[in-house]
Order: sequence, then structure tokens, then C-alpha cells
Amino acid sequence: MEITLTQIATTHNSRTEATDDYWDSVITSIVLEAHIPTEAFNNIEQFSHLEIIYYFDKADDINMVFSGRPRDNPDYPVMGIFCQRKKDRPNKTGLCTVELLAHHERTIIVKGLDAIDGTPILDIKPVFKEFEPAKEIRQPEWVSDLMKKYWL
Amino acid sequence: MEITLTQIATTHNSRTEATDDYWDSVITSIVLEAHIPTEAFNNIEQFSHLEIIYYFDKADDINMVFSGRPRDNPDYPVMGIFCQRKKDRPNKTGLCTVELLAHHERTIIVKGLDAIDGTPILDIKPVFKEFEPAKEIRQPEWVSDLMKKYWL
Repeated sequence: MEITLTQIATTHNSRTEATDDYWDSVITSIVLEAHIPTEAFNNIEQFSHLEIIYYFDKADDINMVFSGRPRDNPDYPVMGIFCQRKKDRPNKTGLCTVELLAHHERTIIVKGLDAIDGTPILDIKPVFKEFEPAKEIRQPEWVSDLMKKYWL
Repeated sequence: MEITLTQIATTHNSRTEATDDYWDSVITSIVLEAHIPTEAFNNIEQFSHLEIIYYFDKADDINMVFSGRPRDNPDYPVMGIFCQRKKDRPNKTGLCTVELLAHHERTIIVKGLDAIDGTPILDIKPVFKEFEPAKEIRQPEWVSDLMKKYWL
């Protein structure tokens, strides 16, 4: 089944190249596309955090994999693509939880979005406490190693 | 910008109608579509939680709104669609964090997915602790009221 989606907003920030790490200082403006009315952001400032679904439009289809070592690091195990968050994946969808800093009309300002300048946004959802994992999160050791410099 | 995605997996569970509440007891099998090789799930059991991006294929375009009162409840404020998680939204994308119970070849069994039987899955990502909100989550009061029976 093929599903056609439409870009609902666009990112604006200082990050022009898709490098892996150091996302903490990146502040991003997200601006609604012309076909989405301003009311779509009505009262969004009542939430501290948002989930952003976006599209890795710069990811090259030729690099897409179904499994592999995260960041091609020989110290990490071979993992299926649905056990990694890398961009070179089927459907090229990205997902990140961000902090909402400000809202003005058709623009929101967020911190902690790992998407470069000009990235198409597909959806924005408020973070509800009730949707957070109820049990402790378990993950393999390579994840903490891979994430060491991500939020610096 | 239009973006065409392909269904990568399908849900199988006992919930055939898109009713609002009582999702806690729903156990869902997610089975890869034929064009996705089995290796895409390789080592997925190393993670306790997954994020599932899916498509509300039964949502009717005619019901889509850009703002409104959640569940049309007059006690709740008017909120933009990107400040709600309802299905009648642009792009009809759903998102839920689930607990992974089991993995066998092309199938994973998950708990806590709020999608009905036969729902197309667009992406699956492992939950990394490092992607969880670092600061406390703030949300308006109506959210806790709306979620009272969701996970019963």
C-alpha cells in the first residue's frame, strides 16, 4: 500500500549538513506551510514537549539498508534497520521529542530537534505524560556509546 | 511537497473498531510486509520499547480538522490539531510507544499500541533512553482527564 503525505511545515536552523553529533545547541524554527491555517498551533504553548515526525529528504535511496552495524562501527553488532534510528531507512521518516521554547502565530521555536535546515515536517504531536513508557527502558550497551556526543 | 511512503508492516489484534479507550489489554502482532526482508528485525529483542509510526487508514478525510475541542468535549479548550493526538489530522499519522514482548522472525508482539487490526505501519524505531525528555513534562489539565480510561 502506497500512502501520499504532504509537508505540513519546514525547519529553519543553522545546521546545513547532516552530521551525526552535537545537536544540543541547535535551536530550530518550525514554520507552517501555506496550506495549513494558523489555528493548527492554537494553544500549543500549553505543552512543554512535542514529538516531531519529519522526512529525511536529503537521504539518498542508494544508501538505504535493511540491517547493518550502527554508524558502520565494527565494535557494534549488526542490527536490523527497525532496531536503529539512522536516516537511511525505508520511508526515510525521522522522529524526535523536542522542548517547545516559544510560539508566535505560524512559528514554533524548539530545542533538541535533530533535523537540518529545510527539513520537511510531516506531523507534530504534543507529549502526553500518559504516553511515556511505564516500565524501565532496556537497551543494548552500544546505544549509550553511540549517543555520547549526540546531545553535546 | 508531496511524499510517497510504503506500508512496511501490518497490525493484527482483536480491536476492530476505532473506539477511544481501554487499550491496555490489547496485544498486537506486527508482521513485516513481503518486500521487507526478515533481517530488518535482527536483534530487535535487545530493546524493551519501540516507537511505532502508523497510518490511520480508516480515518475519513471529511472529518479532518485544524483545531477543535479534544473529543468534542465542551469542558476542554479549543486546541490546534498539532496540540492534540486525534486521528482526524493532516497526514493521518499515528505514533505510539509500545512495550516489546516477543520477536520471532518476521513478527513482533507488542503491548500498548493504540491502533486497530489491519493498520498500516510506516516505521518502527527503538526507544533510546537518550531521546527521552530531559526536563519535566508540562501539559494542560484536560489531558489527564481525557486519558483517564485510555490505558485501562
